[in-house]
Amino acid sequence: MKRVERAAVNVWMVGSIGIDAIMTRTAERKNLMGGSLPFSTAASSFFARTGAVGVVGSDFPVSFDQRWASFGIDLQGVQRKEGPTFRWACKYDDNMIERTTLMTELGVFADFMPRLPDSFRRAPFVLLGNIQPELQLHVLNQSVGAKFVALDTMNLWIEIARPALRKVVRRVDLLTLNDGEARMLTGKWNLCDCADVILKMGPKFVVIKKGEHGALLFSKKGIFIVPAFPVRKLVDPTGAGDSYAGAFMGYLARAGRVTEGFMREALVYASAVASFGVEGFSLDRFERLTAVEISLRVKALKRMMDV
Amino acid sequence: MKRVERAAVNVWMVGSIGIDAIMTRTAERKNLMGGSLPFSTAASSFFARTGAVGVVGSDFPVSFDQRWASFGIDLQGVQRKEGPTFRWACKYDDNMIERTTLMTELGVFADFMPRLPDSFRRAPFVLLGNIQPELQLHVLNQSVGAKFVALDTMNLWIEIARPALRKVVRRVDLLTLNDGEARMLTGKWNLCDCADVILKMGPKFVVIKKGEHGALLFSKKGIFIVPAFPVRKLVDPTGAGDSYAGAFMGYLARAGRVTEGFMREALVYASAVASFGVEGFSLDRFERLTAVEISLRVKALKRMMDV
Repeated sequence: MKRVERAAVNVWMVGSIGIDAIMTRTAERKNLMGGSLPFSTAASSFFARTGAVGVVGSDFPVSFDQRWASFGIDLQGVQRKEGPTFRWACKYDDNMIERTTLMTELGVFADFMPRLPDSFRRAPFVLLGNIQPELQLHVLNQSVGAKFVALDTMNLWIEIARPALRKVVRRVDLLTLNDGEARMLTGKWNLCDCADVILKMGPKFVVIKKGEHGALLFSKKGIFIVPAFPVRKLVDPTGAGDSYAGAFMGYLARAGRVTEGFMREALVYASAVASFGVEGFSLDRFERLTAVEISLRVKALKRMMDV
Repeated sequence: MKRVERAAVNVWMVGSIGIDAIMTRTAERKNLMGGSLPFSTAASSFFARTGAVGVVGSDFPVSFDQRWASFGIDLQGVQRKEGPTFRWACKYDDNMIERTTLMTELGVFADFMPRLPDSFRRAPFVLLGNIQPELQLHVLNQSVGAKFVALDTMNLWIEIARPALRKVVRRVDLLTLNDGEARMLTGKWNLCDCADVILKMGPKFVVIKKGEHGALLFSKKGIFIVPAFPVRKLVDPTGAGDSYAGAFMGYLARAGRVTEGFMREALVYASAVASFGVEGFSLDRFERLTAVEISLRVKALKRMMDV
């Protein structure tokens, strides 16, 4: 599935690209390739020919480009700008769940204006990763072939860009967000109520992510509950939600169409892939991840859900 | 299944019996039948002939006895003592998850010395509900027929009675506790690690409850992940864990033997039954709950888990 070079992109994703510094209870790592886009596209690359849309600065290491390209991702949509790459530093609590952002420097990300390469314009699957809602809309408007659009967002945009966010939400087929964000966006506490409100905003599907507790898919067809794969060796949870969304969209893009059945399969695959991602820093674990490992973990997860 | 009077008890449960006062965001109720035992036995009564072992004071209302007995539960093991019944008051946060205990008065529960009625002694299934570990051991020693013993506990006993608790843990087949308690008992954070440690303490099975996120069953056979049924109308979460444990044991008692398959079914049934319990205060919802409703919710939950 991986490294299908030169084939047309069937899913493209936009998001942030950064250089991260991360502290956990047991380790401290600097100069990691981070941001939402490397995680989402790498996870997607296990399933489909994936295109990346983002921006990096002049300090973005060539080695990062090489490692990223090694997933067979089409990087034509990644702009190179004069100036520093987006930088982010965080420190995890001992429980590896809560984290404190120590530093955010937007760099060239501050003036990011996404431009869709011509070869991406006809791709049927689109993941609008976590960037300003206005920019998500701007790049979506450049797409003529989009058949199924998923949107990821974060608390920041719910707080400071709600009207623009609502505009994008109306345009997409699926909204994915975490439980806290779903509550913030809707003003409801019960996740079923949150989903009801969101489904009225436009999307046909909502995926509410609950971190180590898994995720819930809501649609007119009902609810699907997918657990997180229980990870024994949690190294760094950064990017798990992005890997989740990326693998999910990659799986659908490979399937080529969206049915309740494919959707459920896609979520199980996403759970498996995301669980590998957190076993290493940055894309470390993904770089040595094989299709066989994914398939075995999917089987294991299905056994854990089987009654 | 319910109200099979006079048949021999095939599961008995010990636990606390109280009179509760509960405040939620939208309601305040006093003089509720509470404690772990009413919830666990009522939930179990939908599946098996259930016996209760506990103590009440002279102020325990006759109406409570009648409502409790209406589930067909054998109340021979419930002692009547001079003095006040155990009383407990709590207030839930707006999210209905965190709660603050406002008052605890042990009353006759302080000197509780459980005594197993002769007719319970040969019952094969036993749930040692949340009371002092010494008393759990004391009453377990009176049982000659116990084939499968489950133990529920709480943070208090982990803190103040750890050696005694460890003694009981060694004697039981299954330990059920919530995620926080599992971490407290084992000193591990990762729930897989917690389960490893507990399985080495004696039990062949561990069920780690995660409230609205469901539960995990660990055994040598692997992991089973069961979600909580998404409740739309949460009225009062008090007793949910006790209902869960009770329904689980009732289901196994009806099955008559413990296999991985029955165990998984039992957990799905427990999830369904517990989800009804929180739709009302005390046993209100259980009192009008039918076997058909349980069966429909089990089907719905299985659909939500089906991939």
